This record gives sequence, structure tokens and C-alpha cells, in this order.
Amino acid sequence: MTKPFHPNLNVDALFLGPKSENAVFFREMMDYAVSEHMHWRSGFHPEDSTLVTSVDRYEHNYRETLYRTEGILNQLSAKLKNSSIPFFSPRYLGHISSDTLMVSNLAYVMAMMYNPNNCSYEASPTTTELELESGLDLCRMFGYNPQQSWGHITSGGTVANYEGLWVARNLKTLSFAISQHPKAKDLIEHKTPKQLKNMPTSELLDLITELQKRGLFEEIRDMTCRGTGVKAQILGKLLVPQSKHYSWMKAADIFGIGQENIIPLPVNDHYQTDVAQMRKITFGLIEQGEPILAMIAVVGTTEVGAIDRIDEVIALRKECEERYGESFYIHVDAAYAGYACSMLLNEQGEFVEYDELANYHRSAGIMPENISWPKPEVYQSFKALKDVDSITVDPHKVGFIQYAAGAICMKDKRILELISSHAAYVFEGHADKTSTKNRGILGSSIMEGSKSGATAAALWAAHRLLPLNINGYGKVIAAGIVTAQSLLNKLANLPPIEIGKHRFEVHIFPSPDFHMINFTFKEVGNESLSNHNALNKRLYELCSYSAGRAYTNDFLTSSTILDYKEYGDTPWHHAQKCGFSRSEWEKVRNIYVLRAAVMTYCLRDEEHFEEFWEQLQAIFVKKLTQIVDEEDKKARLRLEPDVPFIG
Amino acid sequence: MTKPFHPNLNVDALFLGPKSENAVFFREMMDYAVSEHMHWRSGFHPEDSTLVTSVDRYEHNYRETLYRTEGILNQLSAKLKNSSIPFFSPRYLGHISSDTLMVSNLAYVMAMMYNPNNCSYEASPTTTELELESGLDLCRMFGYNPQQSWGHITSGGTVANYEGLWVARNLKTLSFAISQHPKAKDLIEHKTPKQLKNMPTSELLDLITELQKRGLFEEIRDMTCRGTGVKAQILGKLLVPQSKHYSWMKAADIFGIGQENIIPLPVNDHYQTDVAQMRKITFGLIEQGEPILAMIAVVGTTEVGAIDRIDEVIALRKECEERYGESFYIHVDAAYAGYACSMLLNEQGEFVEYDELANYHRSAGIMPENISWPKPEVYQSFKALKDVDSITVDPHKVGFIQYAAGAICMKDKRILELISSHAAYVFEGHADKTSTKNRGILGSSIMEGSKSGATAAALWAAHRLLPLNINGYGKVIAAGIVTAQSLLNKLANLPPIEIGKHRFEVHIFPSPDFHMINFTFKEVGNESLSNHNALNKRLYELCSYSAGRAYTNDFLTSSTILDYKEYGDTPWHHAQKCGFSRSEWEKVRNIYVLRAAVMTYCLRDEEHFEEFWEQLQAIFVKKLTQIVDEEDKKARLRLEPDVPFIG
Repeated sequence: MTKPFHPNLNVDALFLGPKSENAVFFREMMDYAVSEHMHWRSGFHPEDSTLVTSVDRYEHNYRETLYRTEGILNQLSAKLKNSSIPFFSPRYLGHISSDTLMVSNLAYVMAMMYNPNNCSYEASPTTTELELESGLDLCRMFGYNPQQSWGHITSGGTVANYEGLWVARNLKTLSFAISQHPKAKDLIEHKTPKQLKNMPTSELLDLITELQKRGLFEEIRDMTCRGTGVKAQILGKLLVPQSKHYSWMKAADIFGIGQENIIPLPVNDHYQTDVAQMRKITFGLIEQGEPILAMIAVVGTTEVGAIDRIDEVIALRKECEERYGESFYIHVDAAYAGYACSMLLNEQGEFVEYDELANYHRSAGIMPENISWPKPEVYQSFKALKDVDSITVDPHKVGFIQYAAGAICMKDKRILELISSHAAYVFEGHADKTSTKNRGILGSSIMEGSKSGATAAALWAAHRLLPLNINGYGKVIAAGIVTAQSLLNKLANLPPIEIGKHRFEVHIFPSPDFHMINFTFKEVGNESLSNHNALNKRLYELCSYSAGRAYTNDFLTSSTILDYKEYGDTPWHHAQKCGFSRSEWEKVRNIYVLRAAVMTYCLRDEEHFEEFWEQLQAIFVKKLTQIVDEEDKKARLRLEPDVPFIG
Repeated sequence: MTKPFHPNLNVDALFLGPKSENAVFFREMMDYAVSEHMHWRSGFHPEDSTLVTSVDRYEHNYRETLYRTEGILNQLSAKLKNSSIPFFSPRYLGHISSDTLMVSNLAYVMAMMYNPNNCSYEASPTTTELELESGLDLCRMFGYNPQQSWGHITSGGTVANYEGLWVARNLKTLSFAISQHPKAKDLIEHKTPKQLKNMPTSELLDLITELQKRGLFEEIRDMTCRGTGVKAQILGKLLVPQSKHYSWMKAADIFGIGQENIIPLPVNDHYQTDVAQMRKITFGLIEQGEPILAMIAVVGTTEVGAIDRIDEVIALRKECEERYGESFYIHVDAAYAGYACSMLLNEQGEFVEYDELANYHRSAGIMPENISWPKPEVYQSFKALKDVDSITVDPHKVGFIQYAAGAICMKDKRILELISSHAAYVFEGHADKTSTKNRGILGSSIMEGSKSGATAAALWAAHRLLPLNINGYGKVIAAGIVTAQSLLNKLANLPPIEIGKHRFEVHIFPSPDFHMINFTFKEVGNESLSNHNALNKRLYELCSYSAGRAYTNDFLTSSTILDYKEYGDTPWHHAQKCGFSRSEWEKVRNIYVLRAAVMTYCLRDEEHFEEFWEQLQAIFVKKLTQIVDEEDKKARLRLEPDVPFIG
């Protein structure tokens, strides 16, 4: 095992910090970013005469305009300070948000001054290159071959998911289009009608190459759904985990697939897609002769952070290919946990063997003795990503980049041919140049059009500072994982909190796949699941913007409802652990939980964590006391109905 | 006529300036933006102990990490300075890019520090409000009723166009869904089968309200294409100007409509949709019993800035309703010219009468005596926008906001019901609260998911500083229009440029609808259109990044190819004006033109413009000389084939 632990990044030096500890550096660099650009401007054709003189600048309305500008910024600042959420603070453990990297904040501002538009190379010679480079960084992290794959930045994970479905859908109709073309249908004559419905991705991509050789590709592309519009019977079914993120419902709508053609895959007790059920459903569809549009798997659900068994999805696909000669497209939504793949890679970008990983993490100083990550099956999931067809990953989540930055990686870039288009005025002049061929592809092969090149600069800079391995991103992500596990341990062992005659226990969701933790407070003796839900909803409100100004709050978290519709009976296990009867569950069929994506890097030291935990316990007492008081007051009002009260 | 010319904005005080003239102010405000946030951090729970001490900060690897950060920013700055395009300079007249507003740059940075996510109100209490407010600003500008309409920010005009098509498509399948439902079909029984295919938007929206009253809406929504998937025969045809921006080709693909279901509307001699042809095609479809999915009209094409006759589209729709009881959805792509609507509004936001407009512009000091804008029919187009169903407009174009910021406005927000969705963890807790009802709608009613709240801050701040009327945005946009028209006058009257024995004439596209100008250089005596195209292509190359570092260039522009496929015989008129024979046109069928969106505010004064024009003439001579020399060299090499040369 090599130990090239360079660069020796200090995680605290990456962020502005909970008390703006790096204020001096940040300010200096911000000034640098702005100054560099200003000099760039003034150095451009110094011979040009001054268009705005200092005399102009002292005119009354000139000063007035500047003062008005200042006034608006004052107003904006007041608004932001008044009602923003302190994501930067370790006191915020809620949505997948935290402090963001100084380097990407600064890189964004630096590039924003130049205002590049990554839709076209012509409007962004610098930042288009940075986008493609950053895309390939992500491809490499997932184990894709950088010669064959490509990745690029989207406005968010939702659009990345859309792009994955877009290529999958158009690919799905290719075999049908080929079968309709007299000069091409020989290419698929060896397939049975059933096999034509579910051809393997790689075979279809080879057919694109073959059609291009025959000069038939564009003609046949017009015969895919791109040209003809969608026909549901050809597309078949979209398999999505039952927990389906709402972006998939939107996607089925947008792409003309129809939400009724989504087949939900039930989850297991760990909120992951249930492998046995997934297999049964898939085999069933194939045996019925139903096309499978695509299989969606999730690496890090947004509600509990569950990681699907990607290796099992790959194994299933292989089995289908061997058993039936049929296959399906696989897209992985790793918007949340994708970057955690870097936790498993050494400095050469190779997967560290699972058995060596714990030691490796410890020697790198990113994991203490008593904590390890990931579980073996999660490790296998990450390792299997190299075999899926496309992957969504959000730099604005665990990439610690500011909003908005999503990304998609595609295993084989030939698939872009199915969706690419050209706008004469945008791409002209590049098509015939080898040197810009790959660059020109950007705007013509994505869903969006004009887009900020500054985002590419932010991502590129982050990837340069934090390589996508154990010693780069791994270090920062580990801090959150360590904190999540420490917190979970504490919560699991917390004795009941006594408030007057009330006693409250905490019940956790044990051993999460990533760094999202879910828990509920249960009043001892309460047998009503509805009341339990109401208690936790009220707790959430008291720990969020809804209780008033977030800035004056001492703990902020988020929450979610785990419902029978999305999770079947899985949430029942938590209800049961809390002591609720089966009939209560049958009656209510959902559970309201507190939900915390633990991304903070500040509490990775035991000492800091212990101090935080002391505070947090006191905060729990305070919040619960407030709720008890509220309830007591309500009860008093109910007992004394004659007493007039205001409100 | 009222003359409340307050605030008296000084356009030069809005931008950093071509020589960073406002450097001091910008720097001061940037420091303010950053400082305010830093204090916000350090003031949050001052009682918390320091997690990063000054001792920590002097550790070796801490310093090393900061230095590495600095090094990466140095590298980024070098890259940006080396190959960025100087959009800020009046020497750049090409794509729809220019200097951007200081206030929006600063507002973006200020808000970015707080990292709000406008997907959900919970993650962006401040900036979600700013987004909705800015959206309504745009609605008001277009004449929509702010009580009934809504607008929001998209990542760009392409996504805004997608959203317009999304609602149009889903709306199109509503009548069919209703006709299939036993408890609802009475609502449309009075319609003939043909009328059901093309129901008016407003009637369909009233049906949504009625279905909601009956408690049937969600059930029926699942029966629209959202639930069932697309069926081409129900959707019918999408009418798009023949010049079709590539985003419409992508849209027809993405939404499962099929590119073959686009019906191109031919353009007239002014590159606008030909009204007579549009009417003929529309009536033809209705008479054939073919559904019309939507009519797309463009306010400012990206190739010549042509503005379609929106009033004629509205008149046509009215005629169809009266004559056949049939109708169609209208979406206007005003990505480019939408903000120019502010040129027509007084401080109360009312349209100034056309006859008074020239005087109004002159009293406001935004138009000199010899220039006026717009032409009467362009004025009527803007005035008719209030009657269309949805409008795309790009703040990152003529809103002078940095990338990426698009927007869409919808006339009647009830239409959102057709596309809205909910994610439990994102929206929970808002649905039942009146006060946050409109806020919560954001993430559930848009195509994207997570998105930057900083963009909303940038847009909000710009709209506050520059009201959307003659005295706000009007002033800035007018500067570009004045410059475009001045330049066009000069080009039209430029005597032939003599380079040795060669003489070059300039031929312009006369009287553009907005501030985009197109022109070509013609060598006197050249009868080959291919050679003409090659000359202009080479000129473009010499005036763009392709000739080497853009920073060392003295003039930058863009170009496009006007092809028979997109414009029919319209470009022939320019070829003819240049003196080419009809047979040359028939042979080549496209024309390569130089294209300049004139957005600079720096050349609005006659004196500055004259100086620029002197420079520009010299630049033309220089570039043409270079081309003549290149050609001479090539000719020499052809004549002396034996002479060895390196290369």
C-alpha cells in the first residue's frame, strides 16, 4: 500500500469558517479576483480614449446612481441577514447544505466578471475547457474510461436526471427505427422480436457507429422518437425506486412517457430498492414481452440517504442478457452521495481494496478508530458505478460548491449522437475543426442553452484543490460521516429527557448508508402515532425558519414524512421500535421524522463534537419544554372554556 | 403627458466600465457584500467557542492549503485573462453579450455567500421572495395582470421555452382527458369533435377551476399526457417560425412531440414570420381537423433580431375563435428583445401612445433627433404581448445580468396546476399555510429543482435600480439601439474600401427590428457567392477568437449563415443587392454574414461614436489588407508550384 499523502490538506483552511476565521485570506483573494479583472479591462487597448471621465463621474446624477446602487445593496443585505439560513454553522444539520469551498466561491466571482457563456465555445474559450475537464474528473472518479466517456455541468441534479432519461428514451426507439429502414434492418435481423424490444446499450451504440459508416444515421435518427414523437408501446416501462424522487415524476411527464408507465420498485427495510423484488419485476416484464425503458437506481436518497445495490442491478442486467438476450439502460441518481466515491480512491484514483480501506482511512487521519465507512455493500455499489450507463452527481451537494451546479456523466459518449443538434450561429466555424470539435459539442449536446461559465470555473478550481480521492474530497466528506455517526451513537444512548411529568425518548434510524440521519422524539406513554407525528412536526418547526428568524435559533434541522405510498411498510419498523401498535400504523400509515444531512466539517474532532453535544442536549430540553408548555396552555384553555382569551 | 423623470439614472454609473472607471465604487461595494456576510457569521451565537483557533491557522498544512488555494486562483486568473472575450468593451459587437450591471454582479456575490436554494422556500426564505417579485416585474412589463400571472427565473431561455411548451402540451390533452371521464364529460358536451381538438386556452383554464370544484381535477390530470404519455394524434402540430431556433428542435424531441410534428412558418423579406403564410397554414390545419399544439412567435430572432407580428398572431387566434370556435396556445420567445418592452412604458408602467413615443424618448434624453425606435409594427407587437399565453425573456441578454438567468412569464397561473408536483421533504409544512402558499409553489411548479437564489437577488437588485420603463432599462437599451442605427447609417454610406487593385463594398441588412445588425463585405467584380461567403467567413475569423488571442484583437464580432433551409429565398434579396445572379444563389443557397448585437452603452454620445467609427474604418482596412495579402500569397504559391515552402 502506497502512502503518498500529499497534498496534506487542512480541512479548516478550505472554508470561510463558522466565525469567518479565514476572513483575511478570503478578502485578499476576493480583492485579487476583482483586481485582476479590472486590470484586464484597463489594459485592453490602452490607446482608446476615456469614455467615462472623472468629470463625468462627479456629475450629480452619476453620484446619485451610485448611491442608489449602494442603497439597493444595503436593502438586499438587510433582507439576507434577516431571513437567511445559517447553513455554514454546525448548528445547521438539515438539508444537504453546508458551508461551501472558498476556492469555488472565489473562482465563481473571478470568472463571473468575464461573463463567459458555456453554451458555445466562441463565448467561453476558457470555461468550456474547464467544464469538460471537470466533467472528465467526475467520469474518472466513477471509473469510466476518460477516452470514451463524457461529463458536463447542468443547472442541477434534476436536469442531469432529465438528460439521462433523454438519451435512454431516444436509444430505446433506435432498434425500432432500424427495423423500419430497408437499408439498415439487416443489422438486427438476428434478433427475435422480443429481443429487439430490450437490446443492450452497448450493442445499440455499436449500431450507431455502423449506421454512421453506412451514411444512414441521420436518416434513422429522424425515425426515432426524436423525429416521430413518443409511442408508449415502444418505450415500455421506467423502473424507479418506490421512494421516487419527484424529479422522476416530472421527468416521466416532460419526456412524454407518462407517469403511469413508471413501475415503482419497493424498498427493503433499509429504504434501499429491494433486490428480490427488483429482480422479480424485471424478469416479469421481460417474460411478458414488455420493453424496459430504463432502470433508475439511487445512490443517496434525499430522505434517508439510502444507497441502492448498484452491483445487484449490474448483476441483474448481466443475467437478463445471458438468460434472454435482453437488457436495459441503467441510470444512477447519485446527486447526493456521488462525490463520496472519492472516499474509496487512492491518490492514483484506484479503488482501495475493501479490506484495506479502514486502515487507509485511519492512516490518512480522516477516520477515528471507532468509526468506519462504508458498509461492504455500499462499497460494492460505488465500485459497480463504472458499469452503469449514466450517473447524476451534484457538485452543489457533497461537492461543497455553491448553488447551482449539477452534473451528468455518460459512460459512452457516442450516445450523445441521439440528442445532439446544431444551431448555425452558435456552432458555425467549429464543425470542421478538429481542435475545437470536442469543445463545440457542448451546447449542441445538452438540454440547456446559455449557461454560466463561472460555474465551470468554480468546479474546476474545487477539483484542482481537492482531488477526487481519499486525500482530497475524501477528507472533507469524512468529516461529515464521522460527525453523523458520532451523533447517531449519542442519540442512540441518550437517556429519556424528563420535562415535568413528561418523558421523551429518542429513536434513531440505525446504520445509515451515508451521512444523513433520521430520528424522532417519542413521549413515553403516548400510544398515538398521530400525536407522535404532531410532536415531531412541532419540534421541526421550532428548529427551523418557521419558528421565526433562523438566525436567533440555536439549532436548525429539516424533516420529512415517510409514507406508505412511497415506502410501503418500511416505516412501520420505526413506529414499532417506538412502541406503536400495528393498528396505529395501519391507521396513520406515515411517520414524521427529523432529518439531518450531516455535512459540517467543524465537528470532526472529538472535543468539538462533545461540546456541541452538550449544547444540543440542552437545546432538546429547551425545545421540548416549550412544547410541553404550549400543550399545557392548550389543555388549560380546554378545561376553562368560559375564560375569555385573546386571539 | 407627465414628465416624472426620476430617478435620473446615469448609464455610465451602472457598469464597471470599459477601463474599470468605477473600480473604487465596485471594490468598496464588493468589500461591503463580503464583510456584511462575515459579520453575520461571526455574530451568530457569539457564545460558541472558536472551532478554528489562530494557533490552528498557523499550522504548516493550514498555510499550505491556503497557498494552494491561492495558486489555483492564480492559474484560473491566468487562463481567464489569456483567452476570455472582452464583452465589456465597445470593440466587442457580436453575440448578445456586453458589460453587465454592477448592481447584479454585487448582489449575486452578496447572496451567494448565504448560498440559498430557491427550489424550496425553506432553503431560501429571502431569495424565493425576490424571485417571485422579479417574475412579477416582468409580467407587469408585458402587461399581464400581476394578480393572475406569474413569472420565475430559469437557468436560461431554452428552459423557459421548454416550460412554455410543457404547459401548452399538457393543456392540449386536457379536453381529451375530460371527454374520457364519465363525471366530467358533460362540461364539454356542447363542443363539436373538431372544436374539442382546438379549445381556447382560457376555456381550458376555466375547466381546471370547474374540475377542482368537482374534486375531479387530480384524477383527470392523471389522464392527460402527464399520466398516459404522449399521443401524437391528440397533440397535433407545433407551429414554429422557419428560422427555428435550435431550442425548438430540442424541445420537440424532449417533450415527445417529434420534430416531424413541427410545421415551419416561412419568413417574409424582413426575416419575420410571414403573416399571410401563417394564416394560410393555420386555417388549413383547422379545416383539416388537425390539432394545433401551439404557435410559437419570436420577439428578436438570434440571427437578425427580427420581431414577429404578435398583434397579427393574436388577431389570427381571435379570427379562428370567431370563425370556427377553435383556438390555439401562443408562446412568445422574447429571450432576446423582451426587455425592450421597457422602452415603451412610462413611469406608471403604461404604454406610451405611439405618436407620443418619439417625443417622450427625446425628452427623456435617450434618443437623439435623427433616430427613433421602434417601427409602428414592432410597437404593436410589444403591445400585443399582454394577450399571449406565455413569454420567454432572458435577463442575461438585454437585462444586462451576468449568466445564467432566463425567465418565463405565464399569463394565467392556473396553468401551473397541469405540471405541478410535490416532494414531501421539500414542500411539507407549506401546503396548509396561506402565507407561504405562493412561495411553496416555486419548486413544485418548475422544470428544474435546486437552483441558485443568488440569481434572484441579482435580478431583483437590477429591477430595483432600473425600473422596467423608459427611465430605467429603457435608458440602457436605448444606448445600444442608437449605436446600432448610427453604425448602420455609417456602413450604408461607406465608400468602397480600396486595397491595392481590390475594392470592397459593404452591404447592410436595412432597418432591423431591434439592435442586431447584419452586413457583408463584397469585393467589387466578384461574381461568385461562394467566394463572397469565404471572404466574410475569413473576416469573421480575423474578428474573433479564431485569429488568436481575442485580447489582442481590435474588433470582435460574430457571424451566421442564412440558409435556404431556414429562410427560404429571403437571403437571396441580400445576395441580389450585393449583385449576385439568381443562378449563383440557386447554386449556393446560403449567405455568410457578419452579425453584431449592438448592446454597448459606451457609444451613445455622437462624439464617442465618431471616434469609434474612425477606428473601425481603419480596422476594416487592416483586416481586408490581411486577407488580400493571404490571397496574393496563395495565388503566388499556385503560380510557382515548384517553389518549396515550409508548412
